Amino acid sequence: MPPEESFQLNCPIPLTDYPRVLLAHGGGGRLTKDLIDKIFLTSFNNEALMNRHDASLVKVGDLWTAFTTDSYVVKPLFFPGGDIGTLAVNGTVNDLAMAGARPLALSAGFILEEGLPMETVSKVADSMRKSALAVGVPIVTGDTKVVDKGKCDGLFVNTSGIGLVESPTPIGPSGIAAGDVIILSGDLGRHGIAVMASREGLEFETTVESDCAPLWEPIHRLIQAGVPLHCLRDLTRGGLSSALNEISSASGFSMEVEEEKILIPGAVEAACEILGLDPLYVANEGRFVAFVPEASASQALSLLRSMPLTKDACLIGKVNNGKPPMVFLKSRMGSNRVLDMLSGEQLPRIC
Amino acid sequence: MPPEESFQLNCPIPLTDYPRVLLAHGGGGRLTKDLIDKIFLTSFNNEALMNRHDASLVKVGDLWTAFTTDSYVVKPLFFPGGDIGTLAVNGTVNDLAMAGARPLALSAGFILEEGLPMETVSKVADSMRKSALAVGVPIVTGDTKVVDKGKCDGLFVNTSGIGLVESPTPIGPSGIAAGDVIILSGDLGRHGIAVMASREGLEFETTVESDCAPLWEPIHRLIQAGVPLHCLRDLTRGGLSSALNEISSASGFSMEVEEEKILIPGAVEAACEILGLDPLYVANEGRFVAFVPEASASQALSLLRSMPLTKDACLIGKVNNGKPPMVFLKSRMGSNRVLDMLSGEQLPRIC
Repeated sequence: MPPEESFQLNCPIPLTDYPRVLLAHGGGGRLTKDLIDKIFLTSFNNEALMNRHDASLVKVGDLWTAFTTDSYVVKPLFFPGGDIGTLAVNGTVNDLAMAGARPLALSAGFILEEGLPMETVSKVADSMRKSALAVGVPIVTGDTKVVDKGKCDGLFVNTSGIGLVESPTPIGPSGIAAGDVIILSGDLGRHGIAVMASREGLEFETTVESDCAPLWEPIHRLIQAGVPLHCLRDLTRGGLSSALNEISSASGFSMEVEEEKILIPGAVEAACEILGLDPLYVANEGRFVAFVPEASASQALSLLRSMPLTKDACLIGKVNNGKPPMVFLKSRMGSNRVLDMLSGEQLPRIC
Repeated sequence: MPPEESFQLNCPIPLTDYPRVLLAHGGGGRLTKDLIDKIFLTSFNNEALMNRHDASLVKVGDLWTAFTTDSYVVKPLFFPGGDIGTLAVNGTVNDLAMAGARPLALSAGFILEEGLPMETVSKVADSMRKSALAVGVPIVTGDTKVVDKGKCDGLFVNTSGIGLVESPTPIGPSGIAAGDVIILSGDLGRHGIAVMASREGLEFETTVESDCAPLWEPIHRLIQAGVPLHCLRDLTRGGLSSALNEISSASGFSMEVEEEKILIPGAVEAACEILGLDPLYVANEGRFVAFVPEASASQALSLLRSMPLTKDACLIGKVNNGKPPMVFLKSRMGSNRVLDMLSGEQLPRIC
């Protein structure tokens, strides 16, 4: 039994085997982990996969490359601040960046529904072009499949990517040490709320735009500056809470974060209140956490704050000496509570 | 205007712009080419993509790697001789092999429909495991998305792959020379007919099994033996005819093949007659054509015939001196006809 399962403090769904796939199996939380652990990791068992990082490392000659894949099923295809094309390119670029790897090449696999307006395909391809151009990574190979009307939801995209690892040390949960500080790169919750509002036709006073953005540049700058990056993780499905829980579970370390240090835009906070969502579980597509030694914290922070994309970077917490692996949130009121992994599905089809 | 478009001898669908996606845009024939040319190649314009090979070459340090992606939407998921899992692993392994590359690592991206029996997911994962094990390639990274019931057709898989190029010379249409011979690695049509029969519940006297198989071993042996491989192509969507037409168009060479040299199993021939299909356009998942210099033909043939998978390898034709790029079929009766690219869609969702 993995250690964190002894602490099912707020899990309303029992962790037994499910006979059928639920939406929550794709939510990035506990059920996704369950599906991956029980079926995919068991079947595909190998060292690279077991690292449980966003990208896996593959040795080519003397060099380490990072390799990653993501399918995108976001609904709707277009939302304030981006679309499925920007998401697909940036998402894969970000998975490579989280392994400290410079993106070298991307692939694009399309599944199209019969009857989809060709203009939609063009628009998505154009977004992918622009996003790839912004990072300087070519889309070198692709595939197109068409399924009968009603057999997919307009358009799904898969992007896979190869990157060249530039970090001098391996980045991942196993690199974490007691006393490491946790830096959050910016505000939270904008992607999830932008997609949700767009899907449901909700209007707030200010339009919330997705934070979808490529993260290689800030990571590259941190590597160049010699900041020891112990672990990196982008905060996609399941948000900050799921990311921290995954890292805590994989590293074996307990950690704590302070609520008042975590920046939530007012419009996101308001939307979350209306929709009954917790912003700490809402997906982001241009935010990450970095685990670095305390001695490098101020260097990392000042570097990140000098870039527009990460100007709101903040030290939000630290890795404890103690075990077992759990994530604690110190609330604004000063109380401590366990921040658990998402059990069900807050926002399906967010990426 | 690409050269081959001046020879639309049997194209029932005009090649104008389509306002909406048709099933034929995924058929591997003329409309797929049209979609790729007009939208994806235009958007993603770069040298690697323009090579129009199954896999693209990406330089890592001093070494060339091959990188490829394919999404699988085959219906039904399970068919005689394989399933979507075997197909996904072998298909990507084969795209790497066609670039002369040893498979190094695969990714697996799943899109699951809410309500899909978990047993189905397990079975597919297990098939992928076995197929990957048979080739000795690890599945190192993955992704799982779940979409609402009715928004995909059970399960779609994307596999991408990285390979290390072991061929000493580049393999692709630009390597073809006048006088090259065309070797076909085995019989044709079994995959398409197996899937079609299984989908439609057709029963023939003998069950036709898919030819789905990994092609790296025969290619590896040809490379080791020093056979100059000018061009390789596996005969998937659109079958032999579409593959030859693509290569003819990309290389600029005219070529001719002899019908009587092309082995079609009796059961496939019978099924094609009943279903009104031309076996030369039916998809295969374990067959390839190799373009080699005439002087190496007998060496290549005897090597291929010594392996069970390619025991029926046969020299089926040659590359002509003449242009324009067209493919001619010398029929059993001795007459010559143009073998054109598939215009519509013979068998949707075959892979």
